[in-house]
Order: sequence, then structure tokens, then C-alpha cells
Amino acid sequence: MIKPAQASTPIDTVARCAPMTREPLSADEAEQASTLLKALADPVRLRLMSLVLSHHDGEACACDLGDDFQLSQPTISHHLKVLHDAGLLDRDKRGVWVYYKARRDAIASIAALLS
Amino acid sequence: MIKPAQASTPIDTVARCAPMTREPLSADEAEQASTLLKALADPVRLRLMSLVLSHHDGEACACDLGDDFQLSQPTISHHLKVLHDAGLLDRDKRGVWVYYKARRDAIASIAALLS
Repeated sequence: MIKPAQASTPIDTVARCAPMTREPLSADEAEQASTLLKALADPVRLRLMSLVLSHHDGEACACDLGDDFQLSQPTISHHLKVLHDAGLLDRDKRGVWVYYKARRDAIASIAALLS
Repeated sequence: MIKPAQASTPIDTVARCAPMTREPLSADEAEQASTLLKALADPVRLRLMSLVLSHHDGEACACDLGDDFQLSQPTISHHLKVLHDAGLLDRDKRGVWVYYKARRDAIASIAALLS
């Protein structure tokens, strides 16, 4: 059976965009880029993303990520899920803990779009 | 009379941040950065921003910015106002037209934060 072609992810699309300082974005490019920026455009998610990125190897256990916030664990988990669903964090379950790894390629693609 | 010190703008704060791949953002840095990202995180505003940036001298007349969208002029004006209020576009009225100029320093600061 032939597998259907996998849909292009927002990160794939943004990675192919020319910097927006050089040429206008198409409607589709802007749609895809805005989904990544929306996922990042929240103070808690920005801090979580920066915490994971600055951890050793850009990877952190969910158990270490709530300490800096006066927020419940389910709220932290919700924000981590938004970042994961957007493709900005990879997730790996090991025993009872979930580890998050930052997708540096995704962050770099957004930076390149704005550069 | 002594003038009160001018409050730091989100762009000032973001321009002073270390790249978030290197060290975690503080709560205040994340708050300020998220206001800029929220202003950008919309498909129409991303396209408008890219149109202004890629115009000659990074400046465009509002009269030229609606043609690529199937949106009313008030809707386009609303999105331009959000970008202006966030400090991502400067505005200059000349005769009957308003000209928008992209704040390249602001876009560069966001790119540096993510780089």
C-alpha cells in the first residue's frame, strides 16, 4: 500500500521561507509561521522554552521545569504540550518522567525568518 | 520640574536579553518579549510586516498595503495599528496618506533573542 505523502509541518514551511526582510511572505507561509509564533508568544512558554534550551544538551526533565513558576503542575504540563504540539519541543517518556528536548532547528528557522 | 524616567519599552528589554538558547529568560524579559511576539503572531500582520520590510527603504504607504488581502481597509488599518502600538512599525502622516516604516532594530532584536 502506498503511504500518503506526509503533510508539510509549519517548521518545514518556515525553514524554506526567505527572510521576511527580503521578500513578502505568501499567505500559506504566513499562516504556518504564525502557528509557531503563537505557540511561543506567551510569557510562561517563552520561559519554559528558554529553560529547556539552556539545560545540558537542550533537554530537561518535566520534574525540573515547574520550580521557577508559581503555577500548578497541570498548568505547566499544558504549556509544555502546546510547545510540543507546535513542534518546538520533542518529548520522551523514561520511567515515570517525561523529558523535553528543544527543537533547535525550529527556533533557528524562526530566527532566520526574522533575520 | 524633573521629568519622570521613561519606562523601558518591550523592544529595549528584548534588545538587552541574552539569546534564550544560552540562558533562561527572567519573568519580566519573557513578559516583554511575548508582547512583541503576540503582535507578530498573526498571518495578516506577518504578511503586512514582510510587505513593509521588503518595500524600498522598509517604508510603504498604507494605500499600497491592502491590495494583497481580501480584507476591508479598516481591518488592514487595525492590524497596522497593532504593529505600530507594539513598536514594530513607525508611522508618518504625509498629506492624506499614512506611511509605515519597519523598525528593523525591533525585528533584529527578536531574531537575536531566538538565535
